[in-house]
Amino acid sequence: MEKVNVAIVGATGAVGTKILEKLVERNFPSKSIKLLASKRSAGSKIEAGGQIYIVEETTPESFDNIQIAFFSAGGTISERFVHEAVERGAVVVDNTSAFRMIDSIPLVVPEVNSHMLIDDAKIIANPNCSTIQLVTALQPLRQKYGLKRIVVSTYQAVSGAGSAAINELRQQSGQFENRSAIKAEILPTSSAQQHYPISFNAIPQIDTFHSSGYTLEELKMMNETKKIFADDRLSVVATCVRVPVVTGHSESVYIELETDGVTVNDIQTLLMQAPGVVLQDNPSKQLYPMPLFAEGKNDVFVGRIRKDPEVSYGFHLWIVSDNLQKGAALNSVQIAEHIVNGKQ
Amino acid sequence: MEKVNVAIVGATGAVGTKILEKLVERNFPSKSIKLLASKRSAGSKIEAGGQIYIVEETTPESFDNIQIAFFSAGGTISERFVHEAVERGAVVVDNTSAFRMIDSIPLVVPEVNSHMLIDDAKIIANPNCSTIQLVTALQPLRQKYGLKRIVVSTYQAVSGAGSAAINELRQQSGQFENRSAIKAEILPTSSAQQHYPISFNAIPQIDTFHSSGYTLEELKMMNETKKIFADDRLSVVATCVRVPVVTGHSESVYIELETDGVTVNDIQTLLMQAPGVVLQDNPSKQLYPMPLFAEGKNDVFVGRIRKDPEVSYGFHLWIVSDNLQKGAALNSVQIAEHIVNGKQ
Repeated sequence: MEKVNVAIVGATGAVGTKILEKLVERNFPSKSIKLLASKRSAGSKIEAGGQIYIVEETTPESFDNIQIAFFSAGGTISERFVHEAVERGAVVVDNTSAFRMIDSIPLVVPEVNSHMLIDDAKIIANPNCSTIQLVTALQPLRQKYGLKRIVVSTYQAVSGAGSAAINELRQQSGQFENRSAIKAEILPTSSAQQHYPISFNAIPQIDTFHSSGYTLEELKMMNETKKIFADDRLSVVATCVRVPVVTGHSESVYIELETDGVTVNDIQTLLMQAPGVVLQDNPSKQLYPMPLFAEGKNDVFVGRIRKDPEVSYGFHLWIVSDNLQKGAALNSVQIAEHIVNGKQ
Repeated sequence: MEKVNVAIVGATGAVGTKILEKLVERNFPSKSIKLLASKRSAGSKIEAGGQIYIVEETTPESFDNIQIAFFSAGGTISERFVHEAVERGAVVVDNTSAFRMIDSIPLVVPEVNSHMLIDDAKIIANPNCSTIQLVTALQPLRQKYGLKRIVVSTYQAVSGAGSAAINELRQQSGQFENRSAIKAEILPTSSAQQHYPISFNAIPQIDTFHSSGYTLEELKMMNETKKIFADDRLSVVATCVRVPVVTGHSESVYIELETDGVTVNDIQTLLMQAPGVVLQDNPSKQLYPMPLFAEGKNDVFVGRIRKDPEVSYGFHLWIVSDNLQKGAALNSVQIAEHIVNGKQ
């Protein structure tokens, strides 16, 4: 395998640090790894795999002689630097929403649509964290039985909103007394007019609101899922909620299959063999996925599979995954592995 | 109004103490209030409305000369003492699941079916907390437009599992480091084989499992909702999840109406006038219900009302209420008020 020069933009962030860890852990064929961030973070040191990396400021010239560039520093930075990186010959794996819904840009979860990683793609978009675990878990069902409908309610961790949101949860968690007076500055989104405590609370707003009444996070899940499954007729609707969990998104999912007569056992059997999926579904042993135990793991965990009592082709599932791993860093690195392998 | 002698069984519990508070706060027409609990709690003192009450041990004779008895000490205690109370002439408002699904026993949310409080009812069942807020919010929609389907995912507070669960969350919440080693002894249920931390976690198990794969909590919501709405054809399905919230249950709810062409604005207008319901639905002002701000309030808060993008008679709502107030104590006292008023 040809070795490549790699850059990580947003290297000091919650996802950026995980991308570096994944590259080391998976022996990614890198000649060099360059860590890029804002001017403010330049000079700081990050350790991974026994090696010290020094963070540099992101400039257009940072991408000279880079073959693979990971972007995870927010939409504004991606809009500013992704084309600079591409012009200098890099293939970009972008973890923001900046390019996801552009028709010509592949939106990829390797377990689902690695065939979209065509040779001349210069920008590949990494989907939203809550979308990735949903499509990874549902892909085997969609392939075998067809999927006509998804209704999902999320229980999303604060790390999806970055390191500052983790600190906010940490600071608030000690304040058990006078909970409604807890100070909040970050969530639901740092740009919001109002901030609400996340500790001992559930905030039904992630990202900002669209005029339809849905949040952008909900629309991302709805639109990205259709794009990844390449199915415009699929009905997808989401309610996205932030909960006081550090890492690990959970999803309560209702699906309708195109095939009648499928059993819970059929679904369990299928998911047991599915790539990237771990079945945790044994009520008698209280075995079901939970975010606290998914943290740090690569897999998408599925359990609580139940037949709908009235709709014979309807099923309910509980899907949990580490939003920083498969939901972000791991999926980005998997995409890069496909690209590098394709270039062999 | 004729004044009555009142007893509260389970008076030292999370709900029992709230029932006492509600009786005082609402000037319930009581001649006397007797607080009953286990032998262990006998002799302890509880203050409400400037008066000190001394807790007594529950015995069959405790109910002599009692006209209204509230039970909130678990199903076993209700099974043991409810009939003793009734034999001695009391009307029982039972807040356990012991009698809820018995055909001859009214299961009442006053905003929905106070007509079930017929004169000769000796036991009235108070529904499950997560059911009460659901039916209170949906009743106006059902009356005006008809309801054919409810799919609900809950975000339930630990106080629904009693005071010990609140203490467990409190103890765990300081332990931000090494979260997966947090000690757990109460949740998901004290009788469970396995206990899991609730802090920084979401546990998709409330109560024990039924052979169908649904938990008893989920089946309660499904069966009780049909009974309260007196509609066997209604499709109701629930996924019940415990989250690290002290008090206040949240519900992500998908409904299908029997009427087509209804708008979000129609629903908002209807809920604005609905008894026991407060509409909090203004995305541009980030106004939506949250459990932290519902704590201690009497109302059922509804927001995030959205039209389903594909089903013209489908809507999504976010419903929040204090599980100890409308979800338990308030609803019980409202039932008792109807009974006492009916006896005038």
